[in-house]
Amino acid sequence: MATNQNNKQINVEAFFKISYGLYVVSSGSGSKINGYVSNAVFQVTSEPAQFAICCNKNNFTAELIKESKLLSISVLKKDTDSKLLGVFGYKSGRDIDKFENVKYMTGVTGVPILLEDTIAWFECKVTQTIDFGTHLLFSAEIIENNLIDSSGEPLTYAYYRDIKKGVSPKNAPTYIDKGHVQAAISDAKKYKCQICGYIYDPAAGDPEHNISAGTDFAALSDDWACPVCGVDKSNFEIL
Amino acid sequence: MATNQNNKQINVEAFFKISYGLYVVSSGSGSKINGYVSNAVFQVTSEPAQFAICCNKNNFTAELIKESKLLSISVLKKDTDSKLLGVFGYKSGRDIDKFENVKYMTGVTGVPILLEDTIAWFECKVTQTIDFGTHLLFSAEIIENNLIDSSGEPLTYAYYRDIKKGVSPKNAPTYIDKGHVQAAISDAKKYKCQICGYIYDPAAGDPEHNISAGTDFAALSDDWACPVCGVDKSNFEIL
Repeated sequence: MATNQNNKQINVEAFFKISYGLYVVSSGSGSKINGYVSNAVFQVTSEPAQFAICCNKNNFTAELIKESKLLSISVLKKDTDSKLLGVFGYKSGRDIDKFENVKYMTGVTGVPILLEDTIAWFECKVTQTIDFGTHLLFSAEIIENNLIDSSGEPLTYAYYRDIKKGVSPKNAPTYIDKGHVQAAISDAKKYKCQICGYIYDPAAGDPEHNISAGTDFAALSDDWACPVCGVDKSNFEIL
Repeated sequence: MATNQNNKQINVEAFFKISYGLYVVSSGSGSKINGYVSNAVFQVTSEPAQFAICCNKNNFTAELIKESKLLSISVLKKDTDSKLLGVFGYKSGRDIDKFENVKYMTGVTGVPILLEDTIAWFECKVTQTIDFGTHLLFSAEIIENNLIDSSGEPLTYAYYRDIKKGVSPKNAPTYIDKGHVQAAISDAKKYKCQICGYIYDPAAGDPEHNISAGTDFAALSDDWACPVCGVDKSNFEIL
């Protein structure tokens, strides 16, 4: 339970019944390009064909969208590589070049368009920017688009959450504080995920994967995955 | 293929890769209440917990939201009754009382909240109204909410489209003109769906269900469903 501004209790689990896809929204031009994983994408009008996307103001991509008034939306496929989700969902473009090792193209407007693990994309021009406090909502009209894989199934947030055990990055509109998952409450050997920063603490275990408290990192099975970004054990380093 | 405002070709099939849930968004108070089926719902901020919904200006519910500045969102379950989808998705609240035969409650703000086939609901107060030409985008902060069925699977647009063979109502942001489906091009006996108004014409058949041109209505199997609103043959009447 959480509370709203009137101090009323809000049932947080109810939010998990809202269905979303998962996308990489990109922006920028030339050497300054970036993208992030978003679930907040919907079509607002069909004439003209126009999307709305919602983005945390702190995202580097939000800055680039504000500057360029351009963005692209890549629809991720169901079996998208967890490492791609880790890089685009949990790293900042201020620290790394997210496009370094992935397939992408530059659209007619100069905006980057992720093609890796992508089944369809839309290149768009921003039409309105609306302030929502912590987030910005951009509406954007389609300039070009393409369907890469007509039989490809899109990745949904429900699938990612249930199968890949992901939780929202801190900047997502759907973020719910899961500090307890990341709390370090013992002196046992802890391991840190090099992709998203999650810390595995044996004293806490991993309740989302039914790993009980007191389980050493070494005792986790090889198919155990980071409960935050979904990558495997090889991405963890001892603290 | 369709074209955008710059006369560029747009690949319409690519839009089907965007993932949506299906909801009934309701508004009004007292004797003037209404609701409609929407797929355009996403969370925009978590502090405060706030949704954005997008609604055609011609919808009766849009009028009621503008007047009352209140709305509710009911998350439909996967096996929602096709008749409910027919009534809330393809009928107008100007003609009928959509809540007449369904379970609903009145929220603390006076807004109706559909409970029938609902796994979670949110009662909200509008915070911003943004004009998108044919549509309005409302942002709305949560006043109350509830999770009715924690194990209930939400109905998704993909499931509705693929399994129930629904197509968007004309006022939906995702509507794509399927006039050819409704074209009456012969003198053979036609049948009209009493829920959504779709006309089955033997001369055209039903390409979406692989029913070839020249197939009489009587020859359709009992599990054939209206390609527009998904109800069965018993809902059709001869023209």
